[in-house]
Amino acid sequence: MEHQTRFTVLNLELPPAPKSLGVYTPFLIDGNHIYISGHLPINSDGTLQRGKIGKDMDQEEGKLAARQVGLTIISTLIANLGSLNRIKRVIKVFGMVNATTDFEKQPYIINGCSELFVEIFGREQGIGVRSAFGVGSLPENVPVEIEAIFELAD
Amino acid sequence: MEHQTRFTVLNLELPPAPKSLGVYTPFLIDGNHIYISGHLPINSDGTLQRGKIGKDMDQEEGKLAARQVGLTIISTLIANLGSLNRIKRVIKVFGMVNATTDFEKQPYIINGCSELFVEIFGREQGIGVRSAFGVGSLPENVPVEIEAIFELAD
Amino acid sequence: MEHQTRFTVLNLELPPAPKSLGVYTPFLIDGNHIYISGHLPINSDGTLQRGKIGKDMDQEEGKLAARQVGLTIISTLIANLGSLNRIKRVIKVFGMVNATTDFEKQPYIINGCSELFVEIFGREQGIGVRSAFGVGSLPENVPVEIEAIFELAD
Repeated sequence: MEHQTRFTVLNLELPPAPKSLGVYTPFLIDGNHIYISGHLPINSDGTLQRGKIGKDMDQEEGKLAARQVGLTIISTLIANLGSLNRIKRVIKVFGMVNATTDFEKQPYIINGCSELFVEIFGREQGIGVRSAFGVGSLPENVPVEIEAIFELAD
Repeated sequence: MEHQTRFTVLNLELPPAPKSLGVYTPFLIDGNHIYISGHLPINSDGTLQRGKIGKDMDQEEGKLAARQVGLTIISTLIANLGSLNRIKRVIKVFGMVNATTDFEKQPYIINGCSELFVEIFGREQGIGVRSAFGVGSLPENVPVEIEAIFELAD
Repeated sequence: MEHQTRFTVLNLELPPAPKSLGVYTPFLIDGNHIYISGHLPINSDGTLQRGKIGKDMDQEEGKLAARQVGLTIISTLIANLGSLNRIKRVIKVFGMVNATTDFEKQPYIINGCSELFVEIFGREQGIGVRSAFGVGSLPENVPVEIEAIFELAD
């Protein structure tokens, strides 16, 4: 099934594509690669999810926040490309988790985004390399920030 | 206006290009990409700026530190390329902010570097994707570390 | 000397190539680049090294942990490529150090990995760009996580 068709069937509610919070662009094409800036978890009403995992929210809420970051990235992709069919595959997901210093389940959190990408792009095209780690702090005290690289379809 | 001309007109004072603090190179060309190692804020006299934002320095000082990292990156680019005209555009800025765990304004800090790149490379070529986040600690307790990717001109 | 021959002569003990801890692949080829996911320090018996540098372990132990991450990356490369001769050079090492917030010697820690790469790939091909910084926390409380990019041989 094509990516855009699979996305439509999933009937997901997308947040608005984010505006830049500084002097950068959320999306950039370079050859056959799409670079995605660090994205935050934006709700459908445009507000940001906030809180530190292990203090203000638990693991399940953190994983849902990572899924919301994934939806925000999808929103940026559609706003800039028109269709997800222009994407060949996920190359890389880079997941920054705002957690207490004793937190150990960063991969579980970032799976919230990765599992969304598998739902949309399938197991063959939806799984790339990944790093997941705990930061000291994040912009606006959001629980998760994710940057990504995708490959453009020919 | 060409990048090198615009840079010259700005009359900026550059720090010395950094030596490697370990087993790495500050600068690497790979195809039409320039990879820049994580750079620290080096002063014109070769000393490092030190301190944690939110504890030892405030937001404005942090933003100036990020600008100083940008100047240090420019110094590395000129030392290795001869001229900034060999750069086509900024692809990516990756900004690591050494701040207290309650800090929320990482994008404001990293704008110090991004605004410098716009002054030199212009809005068309000077703005790429970006991530900004808070680290737990940085080498020599500097306030900001930034790595970057540029595209080489043909 | 060829990379695989140099590696054989060094007579290093490799840990098992890691399984994915989430929805990602440890290794991905994209054009002439090899992307390596964030790797953790796996011992030869398959267990993980654990602890925060500056609290549970000192600098020398941290550097050895980074070397062990390097060995784990080599294990992934051999498992996926068959031979290290298929690698042209190191492009980038990205080192995340799980340390106390006053820690300042991240480059010293990550040298544990970089020096291993020089032993195997030589000074010409074994040294790339690098960032080293301190995180807030890491998966399973390991002391070091490293991601990397290599260039494939023609």
